[in-house]
Amino acid sequence: MDSKQFREAATSAIDEIVNYYDTIADRRVVSNVEPGYLKKILPNGPPQDGESWAEIQKDIEAKIMPGLTHWQSPNFMAFFPASSSYPGMLGELYSAAFTAPAFNWICSPAVTELETVVLDWLAKLLNLPDCYLSTTHGGGVIQGSASEAIVTVMVAARDKYLRATTAHLSGIELEDAIAYKRSRIVALGSETSHSSTQKAAQIAGVRYRSIPVSKETDFALTGAALEGVLQECKAQGLEPFYLTTTLGTTATCAVDDFASVASTLAKYAPPNKPGEIWVHVDAAYAGAALICPEYQHLTASFEHFHSFDMNMHKWLLTNFDASCLFVRKRKDLIDALSIMPSYLRNEFSESGLVTDYRDWQIPLGRRFRSLKIWFVLRTYGVKGLQAHVRKHIKFGEIFAALLETRKDLFEITTKPAYALTVFNIVPKVADKKEQDRITKDVYELVNKRGEIYITSSVVGGVYVVRVVSANPLAEARYLRKAFGILVETAEEVRNGKVRQDAPNGTVLDIKGVGDAVLVKENGLTK
Amino acid sequence: MDSKQFREAATSAIDEIVNYYDTIADRRVVSNVEPGYLKKILPNGPPQDGESWAEIQKDIEAKIMPGLTHWQSPNFMAFFPASSSYPGMLGELYSAAFTAPAFNWICSPAVTELETVVLDWLAKLLNLPDCYLSTTHGGGVIQGSASEAIVTVMVAARDKYLRATTAHLSGIELEDAIAYKRSRIVALGSETSHSSTQKAAQIAGVRYRSIPVSKETDFALTGAALEGVLQECKAQGLEPFYLTTTLGTTATCAVDDFASVASTLAKYAPPNKPGEIWVHVDAAYAGAALICPEYQHLTASFEHFHSFDMNMHKWLLTNFDASCLFVRKRKDLIDALSIMPSYLRNEFSESGLVTDYRDWQIPLGRRFRSLKIWFVLRTYGVKGLQAHVRKHIKFGEIFAALLETRKDLFEITTKPAYALTVFNIVPKVADKKEQDRITKDVYELVNKRGEIYITSSVVGGVYVVRVVSANPLAEARYLRKAFGILVETAEEVRNGKVRQDAPNGTVLDIKGVGDAVLVKENGLTK
Repeated sequence: MDSKQFREAATSAIDEIVNYYDTIADRRVVSNVEPGYLKKILPNGPPQDGESWAEIQKDIEAKIMPGLTHWQSPNFMAFFPASSSYPGMLGELYSAAFTAPAFNWICSPAVTELETVVLDWLAKLLNLPDCYLSTTHGGGVIQGSASEAIVTVMVAARDKYLRATTAHLSGIELEDAIAYKRSRIVALGSETSHSSTQKAAQIAGVRYRSIPVSKETDFALTGAALEGVLQECKAQGLEPFYLTTTLGTTATCAVDDFASVASTLAKYAPPNKPGEIWVHVDAAYAGAALICPEYQHLTASFEHFHSFDMNMHKWLLTNFDASCLFVRKRKDLIDALSIMPSYLRNEFSESGLVTDYRDWQIPLGRRFRSLKIWFVLRTYGVKGLQAHVRKHIKFGEIFAALLETRKDLFEITTKPAYALTVFNIVPKVADKKEQDRITKDVYELVNKRGEIYITSSVVGGVYVVRVVSANPLAEARYLRKAFGILVETAEEVRNGKVRQDAPNGTVLDIKGVGDAVLVKENGLTK
Repeated sequence: MDSKQFREAATSAIDEIVNYYDTIADRRVVSNVEPGYLKKILPNGPPQDGESWAEIQKDIEAKIMPGLTHWQSPNFMAFFPASSSYPGMLGELYSAAFTAPAFNWICSPAVTELETVVLDWLAKLLNLPDCYLSTTHGGGVIQGSASEAIVTVMVAARDKYLRATTAHLSGIELEDAIAYKRSRIVALGSETSHSSTQKAAQIAGVRYRSIPVSKETDFALTGAALEGVLQECKAQGLEPFYLTTTLGTTATCAVDDFASVASTLAKYAPPNKPGEIWVHVDAAYAGAALICPEYQHLTASFEHFHSFDMNMHKWLLTNFDASCLFVRKRKDLIDALSIMPSYLRNEFSESGLVTDYRDWQIPLGRRFRSLKIWFVLRTYGVKGLQAHVRKHIKFGEIFAALLETRKDLFEITTKPAYALTVFNIVPKVADKKEQDRITKDVYELVNKRGEIYITSSVVGGVYVVRVVSANPLAEARYLRKAFGILVETAEEVRNGKVRQDAPNGTVLDIKGVGDAVLVKENGLTK
């Protein structure tokens, strides 16, 4: 493909993409292909001779599009959004054009330097304490996902803990102590932390323990609950070294009680001393709201914590992937992830002359992801992004208010937060089992019909439905439509009179949120 | 940015990219900005109000371009290539347009299914044994980088080893055995394995041991050398559980002696038995050559190994990132990386009905990276890609032949392999120290002048220079030019008469390859 052919192909691709976005609301939001659909319609191998772009492009609509779930559709109200924007796409285009693995500064200084600049911009925009800025001892680094960020900081926390608590030993004694401690250290999360903390513990080769939360605290982790688990661990000879706290849990967008967590830790594992517990704030989705002053009080305790992560690619119009991880002490990451001799390493890292981000992450190579963040921040401006977030939060309130008009049908679980509304269907006769059954049936029927796409969860033992109003193309009318569909479906299910005009075919629904489980409707694997 | 503005912005971006590629050879290949250059010329934060695309775009040429090292320039002969192509860029563009974290099948079935299809295509194209196909018990998954792939398989290998070797135990005995084994297990690589194996061991929390290689075997790992280290480990009570072998080492593109490695392991740690050693083939760069039948004999032993990884983003025209990892038993990955209950997990994984690639990787979310591989394979066709690889290998031979015409100046270290030529400068009077000094001086002077960009390494204790002729825009004339520059510079250095017209300013050079070390020329950190 030469320059001329590329210009033509790209123009045609741009047309197709614009048309896709302009008409996306008309497509069935969740794909209803059968597993294995694509293999059947593709050849057994690549062609021997090259094909023209026209031949390739026509397969996108014909073969790929039916297998897409349209995350950008305004009818997509599931999970959390993976927001896309035109400036974000331009960022990806330039990033591809400037392809480089950029594992260190000289590989392409602009890749490193723009990342440092926009992450410092973002840290200030999110009201993070100054200790998270590159101009102090901290700094930000773009990771692929919030889950990758958690593995990264957990490995740093593990190594820091082991080093600090065995610093007084040497030789065989040191080796034995580390071996023993590896088997005793434990990573903590709350019951509503995202499952990626548990997975990170598997990867880091350490134990995982979950801290209970309850409806009384709106499913937020508290210092008191943490204290209970710390005491239990101590009694069992286990050593907690890491904790994920959450700003906006997956199920209900609960915000952990950071202040009480910080006080408990000040008592049980004082910061900056051997045995301190690394606290990571997972603000993957709702962290975006921190750009609005009315949410910035939430960062007050973060100076006592160790790392913070939010995804520009969820709510802030930056195409996946752009997970922004900030650490209070970059040295902690570098100590764990650099394989350079320390005498070389420290002079650079500490001088701050250049940053080699490969030592802040698991992979070696990295893409030029800061470009798209830069384009998005500049295109929308701070006010534009604040308006974007506030509009979606307002939609959540509108949607919850609609549910409130039909208390006979809907019961809201926790008040709407960060554009997420969580509720269950009210059964005709109060009965927990029946309530779960009809909520689940409504949820499954809605997704099967595919006019909107939503997710479910289990919160405090109760089966609930989640509706997220933070899609970039969200409008009040789509939420009203969703409400109408939910009313109609709830009435059908409650009355035991389900319309049979829904599309048939394989139905694959989602159970749970985040790490959703695929469940076949025939019950085989329920 | 609305549809109309995007269409205009994208058209302008395409023009800029085409112009960039058409004139790339005229730019200074390696950036010579000073550290911190960008922060000085950017504002302290994002604008309050949005800016137009015209305002943003003009900063790309003015502020970003000076800080780029142009990996696509035909004068870029450093590291290994990170090849880019127009179809690859189109793949990234569509991937951004279809933004989705795609962590499981239903998130967008096409994302999973196209990945399975193109990776099966690729496995066959690379002549991998059938056990690596998704239609058997294996399969491929796209990772971000070869280093990430190594962490992923090492974690799977660690957990498999621990599980298999303690399967006869239970309760406290089991717990103690695992704790003890964690401190005794050791990951192996060769002296010339990429440093990412050592880093992966740090992340997985296990020991690392390097196996010596020598000039006698052209720096390839042999079964005999492996046997020596296995015996040493046994004597020290250490338990090897993982080995990285390499097809195309970073320094010299050496190919490990897979057959003898396989025989040694058959004797010391028989496959499919508790205690077997997981063998990963890191073919990140040179694996691309396996698409040519004349290299396919190299895969003969792979049926005895466990995983194989090659980067489409290095030599095969697919924009970074697209690291293709193949495993012989997908269950091994899923066992280590899934956090689903096994009774659910196995029914899906084993049925092969749907694949949830989140259980084959460290992060949860994933981009639609198979699109660009699909576009590239179709645009070039098998013959086109074979011609591409063969042309570059030929260029390497041409370049080596040029060096041979000046044996007074250049000594080739190992014969050119996979478009990589490695050599040192010959001193006027034979002296190892003087040879290293002048080779290093020539290398540094060439990069400082910035007409071409090359890397250096130390091989078998000898300081060497590497020239790679696999850049997508490589042509014989650029290699002749590079030869001319090297002749001239070598003569200057050997004669102690270095021209002083080279550009001044901060000089930051690269030492080593792959995980190159930044070295300030003032000697502070040499």
